[in-house]
Amino acid sequence: MTQRGLFITFEGTEGVGKSTQIQVAADTLKARGVDFVVTREPGGTPLAESIRELLLTPRDEAMIDTTELLLVFAARAQHLHSLILPQLEQGRWVLCDRFTDATFAYQGGGRGIDLNRIAALESLVQGDLRPDHTLLFDAPAEVGMARARSRGKLDRFEQEATAFFERVRQTYLQRASQAAARYHILDAAQSLAEVSQSVHQLLNALVDQHGCA
Amino acid sequence: MTQRGLFITFEGTEGVGKSTQIQVAADTLKARGVDFVVTREPGGTPLAESIRELLLTPRDEAMIDTTELLLVFAARAQHLHSLILPQLEQGRWVLCDRFTDATFAYQGGGRGIDLNRIAALESLVQGDLRPDHTLLFDAPAEVGMARARSRGKLDRFEQEATAFFERVRQTYLQRASQAAARYHILDAAQSLAEVSQSVHQLLNALVDQHGCA
Repeated sequence: MTQRGLFITFEGTEGVGKSTQIQVAADTLKARGVDFVVTREPGGTPLAESIRELLLTPRDEAMIDTTELLLVFAARAQHLHSLILPQLEQGRWVLCDRFTDATFAYQGGGRGIDLNRIAALESLVQGDLRPDHTLLFDAPAEVGMARARSRGKLDRFEQEATAFFERVRQTYLQRASQAAARYHILDAAQSLAEVSQSVHQLLNALVDQHGCA
Repeated sequence: MTQRGLFITFEGTEGVGKSTQIQVAADTLKARGVDFVVTREPGGTPLAESIRELLLTPRDEAMIDTTELLLVFAARAQHLHSLILPQLEQGRWVLCDRFTDATFAYQGGGRGIDLNRIAALESLVQGDLRPDHTLLFDAPAEVGMARARSRGKLDRFEQEATAFFERVRQTYLQRASQAAARYHILDAAQSLAEVSQSVHQLLNALVDQHGCA
């Protein structure tokens, strides 16, 4: 019987270097011969990517908070059941750029949606499924925002004020403190080389614990 | 103070003549000087119409049932809060082609999604809000399907088998029997002139009861 793969998520506010660090994680797994896929939320399948586009494109019509929340979970249901779970069951590891922690942080902490409503949707879509490990890249909001701005045109979320991202950050940290076993907090204000080194070591340790596919 | 408008929904399976009868209802209200808007679900605002497109367009990737359910309610949250409620509060009547009864009928009865999950989303999105009146156009599934087919290219729902629509129909009838005060069941297998006459009389009676805006 194939051993189930590990489901590892990468979380943090804008500009904390998630994309770079997912690449570091992928390179580490490749070097160890672990079979894996890299994916992202919202998105990850053609349909879920179409939902992502609805979520990120700035438009004249103000998006109702509940609409945003339901679109996020619609994309997640699609991604989870048609990509993530089948891959894990085939023994592949799944590295995912954001998952439900981001919904608690952005729609809950950021937009102020009641966390119980988010938890209700989490259980409707995921049942008991949670990531096996979550790497939280943490940096003060202004550090990340400056980096995001330097990348050019901002999407609907990146256009939010710094106070929004500071609430997002605090919600991430709160969640990490409540489920310490799952979270690995990395100080993203460090140099790129230092963060990369930590990610590399962490992934190697997970392969040692879990074994290859 | 402006009197709140009435929220009237039109329900039924494919090809039962809903669109024609909404026009009859609109003409009746116009003749009585009632201020109203006509809208539809899923859709009704530009964003909700984009979600409708995701729901109706046939695609290679199979849509997960939970994804479909959440997209329907995402469109509804947007439609309800940015169009329906503001219109009702301004005293306008809202005539809506399908609403949450359709979700119970199609996603519940048709697809077999647990009705409790649908009820949970209904209360998350709508709170206590329900339509004031629902006109249910009822006909055997094969009657409606023959009419829908004669209109040409079928969307993702219209491609379902007759058994699917028979389950949809039975769920509609069940719901109507559980909340008889809200529902008006119209026999859509009658002639167009007969159904139109019933709709005309019903809308006139509602105006008499409720008064104009």
